[in-house]
Amino acid sequence: MGQIEPIFWLVPAAAVLALLFAWYFFRSMMRADEGTPRMREIALYVRRGAMSYLRQQYKVVLIAFIVLAAFFSVLAYGLGVQNGWVPFAFLTGGFFSALAGFIGMRTATFASARTANAAQHSLNAGLKVAFRSGAVMGLVVVGLGLLDISIWYLVLNGLMEAPSPEQKMVMITTTMLTFGMGASTQALFARVGGGIYTKAADVGADLVGKVEAGIPEDDPRNPATIADNVGDNVGDVAGMGADLYESYCGSILATAALGASAFMGSGAMQFRAVIAPMIIAAVGILLSIIGIFLVRTKEGASMKQLLGSLNLGINVSAVLIAAATFLILWLLNLDNWALISCSVIVGLVVGIIIGKSTEYYTSHASKPTRRVSEAAKMGHATVIISGLGMGMISTAIPVIAVVLGITFSYLFASNFDFSNFSMGLYGIGIAAVGMLSTLGITLATDAYGPIADNAGGNAEMSGLDPEVRRRTDALDALGNTTAATGKGFAIGSAALTALALLASYIEEIKIGIERLVANGAEVIATLPKDVSDGIVSGTQSIHDATIADFMDWFSVNLMNYKVLVGVFIGSMLAFLFSGLTMNAVGRAAQRMVEEVRRQFRMIKGILEGTGTPDYARCVAISTKGAQVEMILPATLAILIPIITGIIFGVAGVMGLLVGGLGTGFVLAVFMANAGGAWDNAKKYIEEGNFGGKGSDAHKAAVTGDTVGDPFKDTSGPSLNILIKLMSMVSIVMAGLTVSFSLL
Amino acid sequence: MGQIEPIFWLVPAAAVLALLFAWYFFRSMMRADEGTPRMREIALYVRRGAMSYLRQQYKVVLIAFIVLAAFFSVLAYGLGVQNGWVPFAFLTGGFFSALAGFIGMRTATFASARTANAAQHSLNAGLKVAFRSGAVMGLVVVGLGLLDISIWYLVLNGLMEAPSPEQKMVMITTTMLTFGMGASTQALFARVGGGIYTKAADVGADLVGKVEAGIPEDDPRNPATIADNVGDNVGDVAGMGADLYESYCGSILATAALGASAFMGSGAMQFRAVIAPMIIAAVGILLSIIGIFLVRTKEGASMKQLLGSLNLGINVSAVLIAAATFLILWLLNLDNWALISCSVIVGLVVGIIIGKSTEYYTSHASKPTRRVSEAAKMGHATVIISGLGMGMISTAIPVIAVVLGITFSYLFASNFDFSNFSMGLYGIGIAAVGMLSTLGITLATDAYGPIADNAGGNAEMSGLDPEVRRRTDALDALGNTTAATGKGFAIGSAALTALALLASYIEEIKIGIERLVANGAEVIATLPKDVSDGIVSGTQSIHDATIADFMDWFSVNLMNYKVLVGVFIGSMLAFLFSGLTMNAVGRAAQRMVEEVRRQFRMIKGILEGTGTPDYARCVAISTKGAQVEMILPATLAILIPIITGIIFGVAGVMGLLVGGLGTGFVLAVFMANAGGAWDNAKKYIEEGNFGGKGSDAHKAAVTGDTVGDPFKDTSGPSLNILIKLMSMVSIVMAGLTVSFSLL
Repeated sequence: MGQIEPIFWLVPAAAVLALLFAWYFFRSMMRADEGTPRMREIALYVRRGAMSYLRQQYKVVLIAFIVLAAFFSVLAYGLGVQNGWVPFAFLTGGFFSALAGFIGMRTATFASARTANAAQHSLNAGLKVAFRSGAVMGLVVVGLGLLDISIWYLVLNGLMEAPSPEQKMVMITTTMLTFGMGASTQALFARVGGGIYTKAADVGADLVGKVEAGIPEDDPRNPATIADNVGDNVGDVAGMGADLYESYCGSILATAALGASAFMGSGAMQFRAVIAPMIIAAVGILLSIIGIFLVRTKEGASMKQLLGSLNLGINVSAVLIAAATFLILWLLNLDNWALISCSVIVGLVVGIIIGKSTEYYTSHASKPTRRVSEAAKMGHATVIISGLGMGMISTAIPVIAVVLGITFSYLFASNFDFSNFSMGLYGIGIAAVGMLSTLGITLATDAYGPIADNAGGNAEMSGLDPEVRRRTDALDALGNTTAATGKGFAIGSAALTALALLASYIEEIKIGIERLVANGAEVIATLPKDVSDGIVSGTQSIHDATIADFMDWFSVNLMNYKVLVGVFIGSMLAFLFSGLTMNAVGRAAQRMVEEVRRQFRMIKGILEGTGTPDYARCVAISTKGAQVEMILPATLAILIPIITGIIFGVAGVMGLLVGGLGTGFVLAVFMANAGGAWDNAKKYIEEGNFGGKGSDAHKAAVTGDTVGDPFKDTSGPSLNILIKLMSMVSIVMAGLTVSFSLL
Repeated sequence: MGQIEPIFWLVPAAAVLALLFAWYFFRSMMRADEGTPRMREIALYVRRGAMSYLRQQYKVVLIAFIVLAAFFSVLAYGLGVQNGWVPFAFLTGGFFSALAGFIGMRTATFASARTANAAQHSLNAGLKVAFRSGAVMGLVVVGLGLLDISIWYLVLNGLMEAPSPEQKMVMITTTMLTFGMGASTQALFARVGGGIYTKAADVGADLVGKVEAGIPEDDPRNPATIADNVGDNVGDVAGMGADLYESYCGSILATAALGASAFMGSGAMQFRAVIAPMIIAAVGILLSIIGIFLVRTKEGASMKQLLGSLNLGINVSAVLIAAATFLILWLLNLDNWALISCSVIVGLVVGIIIGKSTEYYTSHASKPTRRVSEAAKMGHATVIISGLGMGMISTAIPVIAVVLGITFSYLFASNFDFSNFSMGLYGIGIAAVGMLSTLGITLATDAYGPIADNAGGNAEMSGLDPEVRRRTDALDALGNTTAATGKGFAIGSAALTALALLASYIEEIKIGIERLVANGAEVIATLPKDVSDGIVSGTQSIHDATIADFMDWFSVNLMNYKVLVGVFIGSMLAFLFSGLTMNAVGRAAQRMVEEVRRQFRMIKGILEGTGTPDYARCVAISTKGAQVEMILPATLAILIPIITGIIFGVAGVMGLLVGGLGTGFVLAVFMANAGGAWDNAKKYIEEGNFGGKGSDAHKAAVTGDTVGDPFKDTSGPSLNILIKLMSMVSIVMAGLTVSFSLL
């Protein structure tokens, strides 16, 4: 079989270990008591709702996958412009992503009542159940991700034929990269659909429940309450998981492809460069597991202490991986290992800076959110203006962090030789892998949030002792903070991953040209003139071509109108996509409002607590709304890169990706931070400031929070998917683009 | 003197003609009666307020100009990295722009009472006074713009020395381009300061007046009323005028520079290519004057008829200029004249499409705005969500229009030879000139709006017959529509102008390298290695270098991390700039609110109509607020391109410009359209829909309108300036950037 050195087996081993620990945490959670019959009943409603949503979503996803797999097959076997492995790789990427979402969400829905029940005993017991259930999600995502990568690596290594071992490595990595398309497509539906679902239910429940009927959050008399709790699971657990599954696999695969190209011609060194990101990820899994075991707290812990115990786990994992990276790359004996290790650390640091900046801008312990709070005193309009202004300003630090991250990871990996494009870009990929290496634990803290939130809902609806609700509220408040930083992390990692994907796009173009060359000279004539001239005259070999050559051949420079046109379209697509998802939430929420009003009118005694609301119907409405509403944005996200490629070629596509990435990243940060700030500005008022609950300022702050809901939980996170998916679509379509462009 | 062919004299002649007609319209407006003593008094208050603002602003601008001119002098005479003409050109650009703003605004403040008075006689009389006063602004802008261009052309042609006539032409045009920096800097202060002023006064007046005290708009009892009316003049007249003055001069100068480079080596043809944009602009002036005379209406005209009469003038001018272009370029005997004429028409068409799309999305006669209106039924949050979503979606058509505009103007001018970068980019410049060729009349319709608005305010405050107010309301409503399309036009022309400036940046870099070469080989060593190697070894001559060569030398391709970093910073800067201006409005409005509340408390009998409010103090507060608040965004807009150039070099700067342009353009369209839609959604409800005035839906719609105010009148329009100014700063700093970059 060739190129499998023993160290490679660490990768599947870590994957299996992650899954084993996930199983262990799942079993130990399941052994916990689910509480009173009422608690079980509520949990069952939510579980059923979540599963019915997932079933419905997977139906839509299945159709999309069949259509796309058929399309890829035609491209591969009919037109010969694509790798024959793509349809299969695409399907497994989608399957594993969906499986991770399924397991994570199912775990979460089993865990909420158990968390509430454990919170009857102690805060620590509650935290433990919730956090370890979140860890199931984290470990399943990284475990299945690395498992899929390992299997494909072994399969392709065994089956692929190539003129030389080094070319084989290039072919393996570029082929594997396309399985990310499956993960991307599934993530699109999970994130966008889940995001629309959760906010349609939330906004709908709040508008009629809190505002019109004046009943509290999570009140069982509100027919949309169960849908709202289901939403936390489908949006914040399954959606977030699919998003980060995609970033995780995408960054590792893109970096492997960049490594195969950068170390072309260096023999065994190439293999080491390819598996380096996988090994870093594998070791990251082990260290994440250690971090997870470190998370515990004592009874009566303050918010700060709770946050401290989560941060302890994350920070220990991060510091250990930073140290371990030097060891790994030294053991691998990779060229320039010390500086490349610094690129990994750059990625980790960028993640931390973005997280801290998110915390600063969205926590009501700091000035920006308090100012938004204060603006609520003047009314609805000023709280909105203030939140929008603050959100826009808050984009500066994350962008500067990413800019410094790109610069230093590039310069380190290229050994400060600016002209060494391939090594520099490999460094950017390595930084993305570094940032995501501790995903096992960071995702655990993310998934923990909605579990705690649901536990609170369960406690409320089951009428448990107020002390229990107080404890779950403490867990939930912690969850809000981790959710905000988790969002920042998701956006930052999406940006770096998208950059790595963008860089590896060139590799796919190379392969595409080779395929054309193999198909005969007639096809070559459709290439840009410089390229075809070079190939035909034999002065240019594709394999010897540098990245700079490719940029030159396809004129991927900023004076090429195709690049400029691409940038405009990319920027516009980010806004269009956000607008469509915003409006989708608006429309779906509207339907929910009408249904809740209808139930209040038609079902007697709901508000008096004597009638039972029809929860299932609200769940069904949100499910249907999400399915219908996600079609248009999803279709655009897939079609526009393809159409741009057909009309404007490689230069147009790269412009599109860069424009979409730049605008999409900044827009996503803006939306996430504005939404988080409005949320906490409201909480700050509810804590008794500026008039407290029920004051005019509070009403204005609720407006801000409601506007912020689709910002931070639908449109903002959906942009993470968009910027990665555009790159993935372009990568998979590289063969088509290179052989066919109109202008 | 050389290269002055007789046809050139058409340019200064048209400029003088524009100024003569402006004088004629001004005189005829001044002859009209200003009405009752009360009307004169109100007008005097507004005029004094506007002039005191302008005086204050010009003080700040003067300081900024002294600092910048000193800085440019150091660069030119101290470090030798800049053209020695720049400091002078910079100052005249600023002076003429400020003069145009001064004349336009002074005219507007003389015209409002006269419009109200004329409206006592008939609607047509009112329209005539208002529109012709607006035409003063339009004609002064184009007249002074072309005059400045003509004078500099003659001066430089007389004084500059160059090895060959063709190189001289390149030097003249690249030097002239830098006078745009003066216009840009002055526009920055006019647009940003004016934008903050007008919305601080408007939001402040509305929040206390309409919402708290329950008195109508423009009520003389509201102390902020005069400031509000002053705001219309400083923001919508002076700010808009400075914005378009910059676009007008910038597009003509950039196209001339691109023409000088594209037609290098073609003898007399080069001169023709350079003056072609000037001649098109000159003929556009004549045709605009014809259009202005066509605008008239009959008594009792409906909104549609009023709009029709304005559109008649604009459309006739546009059709005539389209036809005239073919004639001009044929007479000039320019190579490829027929296809280049098509590029002009492309520009005109893009302008029209953007205008129509703005009208569609912001008029309450069409669906999108009605949906925003309907969302107000559900409350404050939904009207905001709906407006934001709609605004984001509304970016698609303008972007597609610009994309098609870029594509076709490039392809036409390059005679469908994609690789002919310099001709293609010349075509994009020509399209920008085409779009702006009828500025004389389009700006007249823009400036007309605030005059009509102020006339309404004057009629209200002077207690004129309700019939008069009804007539001024009709004129004002028309003004709102023209203001919306005018905004779209301003954004679209800013985008095309910025593109032309971006393309001409390369020319400045060329000149910068030449200067370095002349200064000796030591300096050459600081250039990118490929460039310096080529120059030193004599294999590369700067003059023979194509645009593609430059892109290659500086690696201005999308895989260069400096370009990517630049794109991120550019995208972020657009958001940061908008966020700062949003917050500026919030803070300045807050101060206004406190002052108005204070006056209501301290000055007895204001609300009963027996006490006189202290209008001047409110004017002073808005003035001060605007001056203070514009410092940070203005400084960032100037400094960030310079810093990016110093750190990341030419590639970083070009990335910055493209990222800022892509994101800034889309963000500006989003903000303008969302703001316009909220404004008209409120008006639609006020017309009696969804509950009408005073209903909860109306309150929610007022929230939307208030949020939309800084969107459409401060942050959105300020982005027009940002995207052009960034290019201008980079152009002026080209010498520094090329000789000094860190990474």
